[in-house]
Amino acid sequence: MKCFALLHHPKIPQSKLLADEIAEWLRERERMVWLGSALDEQAIAERVTDFDLVVPMGGDGTTLRTARMTAQHGVPILGINLGRLGFLAELTPANWREKFPSLLAGQYWIEERMMLHAEFWRDGELQQSFEALNDVVISRGELARIVRLPTYIDGGYLTTYVADGLIVATATGSTAYALAVGGPILPPELKNILLVPIAPHLSLDRAIVLSQGVKVEVEVSTGHRAILTVDGQFHVELQNGDRVLVQASQYVSRFVRFQERMYLYQTLMERLTRHDRGV
Amino acid sequence: MKCFALLHHPKIPQSKLLADEIAEWLRERERMVWLGSALDEQAIAERVTDFDLVVPMGGDGTTLRTARMTAQHGVPILGINLGRLGFLAELTPANWREKFPSLLAGQYWIEERMMLHAEFWRDGELQQSFEALNDVVISRGELARIVRLPTYIDGGYLTTYVADGLIVATATGSTAYALAVGGPILPPELKNILLVPIAPHLSLDRAIVLSQGVKVEVEVSTGHRAILTVDGQFHVELQNGDRVLVQASQYVSRFVRFQERMYLYQTLMERLTRHDRGV
Amino acid sequence: MKCFALLHHPKIPQSKLLADEIAEWLRERERMVWLGSALDEQAIAERVTDFDLVVPMGGDGTTLRTARMTAQHGVPILGINLGRLGFLAELTPANWREKFPSLLAGQYWIEERMMLHAEFWRDGELQQSFEALNDVVISRGELARIVRLPTYIDGGYLTTYVADGLIVATATGSTAYALAVGGPILPPELKNILLVPIAPHLSLDRAIVLSQGVKVEVEVSTGHRAILTVDGQFHVELQNGDRVLVQASQYVSRFVRFQERMYLYQTLMERLTRHDRGV
Amino acid sequence: MKCFALLHHPKIPQSKLLADEIAEWLRERERMVWLGSALDEQAIAERVTDFDLVVPMGGDGTTLRTARMTAQHGVPILGINLGRLGFLAELTPANWREKFPSLLAGQYWIEERMMLHAEFWRDGELQQSFEALNDVVISRGELARIVRLPTYIDGGYLTTYVADGLIVATATGSTAYALAVGGPILPPELKNILLVPIAPHLSLDRAIVLSQGVKVEVEVSTGHRAILTVDGQFHVELQNGDRVLVQASQYVSRFVRFQERMYLYQTLMERLTRHDRGV
Repeated sequence: MKCFALLHHPKIPQSKLLADEIAEWLRERERMVWLGSALDEQAIAERVTDFDLVVPMGGDGTTLRTARMTAQHGVPILGINLGRLGFLAELTPANWREKFPSLLAGQYWIEERMMLHAEFWRDGELQQSFEALNDVVISRGELARIVRLPTYIDGGYLTTYVADGLIVATATGSTAYALAVGGPILPPELKNILLVPIAPHLSLDRAIVLSQGVKVEVEVSTGHRAILTVDGQFHVELQNGDRVLVQASQYVSRFVRFQERMYLYQTLMERLTRHDRGV
Repeated sequence: MKCFALLHHPKIPQSKLLADEIAEWLRERERMVWLGSALDEQAIAERVTDFDLVVPMGGDGTTLRTARMTAQHGVPILGINLGRLGFLAELTPANWREKFPSLLAGQYWIEERMMLHAEFWRDGELQQSFEALNDVVISRGELARIVRLPTYIDGGYLTTYVADGLIVATATGSTAYALAVGGPILPPELKNILLVPIAPHLSLDRAIVLSQGVKVEVEVSTGHRAILTVDGQFHVELQNGDRVLVQASQYVSRFVRFQERMYLYQTLMERLTRHDRGV
Repeated sequence: MKCFALLHHPKIPQSKLLADEIAEWLRERERMVWLGSALDEQAIAERVTDFDLVVPMGGDGTTLRTARMTAQHGVPILGINLGRLGFLAELTPANWREKFPSLLAGQYWIEERMMLHAEFWRDGELQQSFEALNDVVISRGELARIVRLPTYIDGGYLTTYVADGLIVATATGSTAYALAVGGPILPPELKNILLVPIAPHLSLDRAIVLSQGVKVEVEVSTGHRAILTVDGQFHVELQNGDRVLVQASQYVSRFVRFQERMYLYQTLMERLTRHDRGV
Repeated sequence: MKCFALLHHPKIPQSKLLADEIAEWLRERERMVWLGSALDEQAIAERVTDFDLVVPMGGDGTTLRTARMTAQHGVPILGINLGRLGFLAELTPANWREKFPSLLAGQYWIEERMMLHAEFWRDGELQQSFEALNDVVISRGELARIVRLPTYIDGGYLTTYVADGLIVATATGSTAYALAVGGPILPPELKNILLVPIAPHLSLDRAIVLSQGVKVEVEVSTGHRAILTVDGQFHVELQNGDRVLVQASQYVSRFVRFQERMYLYQTLMERLTRHDRGV
């Protein structure tokens, strides 16, 4: 690895200091470093093919954003967690110095995470398409209480969700929003899409893991408007009759890992398990 | 009962025909009848003290709207269901002729349903107050994924919900939105407030029935905006630091009933129970 | 209060030492003390009408057992917690010395908790009856996976649970077993019965709070045997066709409290809320 | 396919008549037929290697039993449903005549379903081992309310379930018992193990899908006894300190299918979705 992009988050002053510190450390070891803001999508897009590694410093949101920018170029990510949860980040401000020598020595492994490719169609025409690492959510707007979502798998009718919304998630997303509405935890390497309804009203209330490779089509049926949200970070307004297609992306996110492959369960358990007090 | 208000819903043509039919029937029996639209709040407000009974014809939304207008004057309601569910309505277009003679003969009972009084405060000043029959919901806006809601009971700290939102419901509301997010079914006469979080994220995920008479205070903590929704029918935008107070209203809704007091369970079970197929 | 029963638990050596310590403290203040084992039901039954207060020292199980023995005589309970949870106990080995002077000075309040009266009928004949403070559970035996439970409220058919079992709980029991299967938390003073199914299979899966004063009748339909469990402490084998009747007991449990009435929520929150880490 | 085993269920008279009918039909087409009881494990075991197809006629229980007997010999199964659900069966008494010609013509596909291999260890010695198609359940006995289950994945500590029990299921089992306790629906071809706790008490309450190929080890910690149940059909008593190991079996069940690969979702939706009535 020769060329590193260090991405700070403009609202987290600590991230800029940390980036400078790491830059110095890398330059002393004769690596090339590019310093930039994780929010400056254009500057990153112009250079991304030069990078051997991108290092976002922030919360999971910063890592998600970085993942969507680097995935199509296959550039790996090494997140340093400055946020609260940091499920995706591998390092902390406290341990990067200890782990970076392993990085330069090639002592790491790359974890590939499936992404979603979503398309938003209106009147038979493709309006926009997106890649997502966590999830694509189709949900009611502010006013309407529910939205009706007839859902098809590879063209076959599955069911009609009558709900606040529907989460279409990856295994990575199974520990994000989907978890909060009762979804299962999936192993990170799983390539199957997960469907979890949000507040289902007398309609199907179970999480479904779909077969690998299927295409999900969700129709929007509402008297008001609905919202399509990608990785919880940006949204598009939907109206009655719009269709959202979701399938596995041709791209994957690539994360540098030093921990053993079992790391995720241990991280999760620390966060999920309430202390064991018996009843 | 001498003076009847028959409220049709302007978007349901059948309701107007039904209102005319009932009006004729009542006039033949020398009752006074006022015909109006359930949406014409001003016209209703001007006359409501003259009415002995208000008869909304529409779905549960029409009945909820009527309830909020009549409660403070103690005028009873007799809903005729033209919608899908009609948990609140007592009659249908098919059976009103059979039951109206009992009505005129005084052969009915009045079911009182608790209502909520909600206040929205900003910077120490009361902005608006509302009465609700089903529920008051404080939820995230479109963009933000979660909202943090430190919640107090009679001034004592209860917990901080980190969730899509919090439903503060009456027993009546326990079969509406609260049910869709896993809440319990409460008996209609219960005077206790029910709290149910929507999609709680690693925070308290259980429904709580509070002691009778308590005051609930919910603080809004969000980087975006949040939404206060009353009976699913109108909404107010909230911002960081706003506070919502909810307690039992001094008013109750009064519904005319012909069915036995056990009616609710049977109606519910028909709607909730999937057919019994064993596993 | 003149006559105190101090009940230790024979399997908790600390409880015997504590009982001796409290006995000495009380005798110095010229109170009468009876020392016994919480498991010695006969000895307690012979003297219970002499007691002004019973002090069980152990876990919630010890308090539940004591409650069932004292309720019909109206004797109040003051639990000292030596177990893990101690939802019912008021004091700990660390603070009894601080609180007992208030007790002798009459500075406390009595919290009444509703109990259940359950009857087990076979072939039209009453077999046994029980009082319960937490819950009465009708569940499958070891082998059979499910049991079918047609359930009636005041003689009217409610639904048929097809499940591992059905919990019929008091408000007190709402924080015990019922909580583990998703039930709501009820305020301790509520006099309504709570029904929560255990692992319902395509049958009604919601908790229901019933109207005050109703009688619940559960019929057992199974090819194997089923089990009736009272407060999680003793059980009776049921067979196909048996019926279990549950209603509010004529007796209540009476607990001495020093804490404010809001205490329960705070105790609960400490135990239920996972630390607030946001997502 | 030359040699067919037709298995009736001795308690379902219709199954014997059906077996005779199918036997006649097959013999007319010069196939060899063996008629026997699905419960006669010994007779089946003696001949199973001669069979090209085994046809169990009964409910899902009959098919599960057949699957465990045939899996290690790779003999495919074609179930005819005489029970209530029949998720596993492919045909009904009403349509076998229409489909059997396709069978003889080779117009079908074989669906392989992962099985579990479970071992029960005590004091460092293997006591018994089992294959399961649906699930292996470690649960409390009749009396004890909970059991503590420290759980390890490939030797690494995962969490300690404090619950009524733990379901270790295959994808096939995800639509059986695991579904009733809130688990997700997995696609039938998935080779991952699913963990779902039953009535978890303040311990991990989420379903987890494990990585393919892992070994699950569950330790039993209880003051009473616990129960190990295999496919809901037979059980073994466990005591404190026993260990249960579960991993993917080296055998798979092989089912003859005529329907398209999407069949499962449609079958499921018919059974799971309550009619769509909106709220």
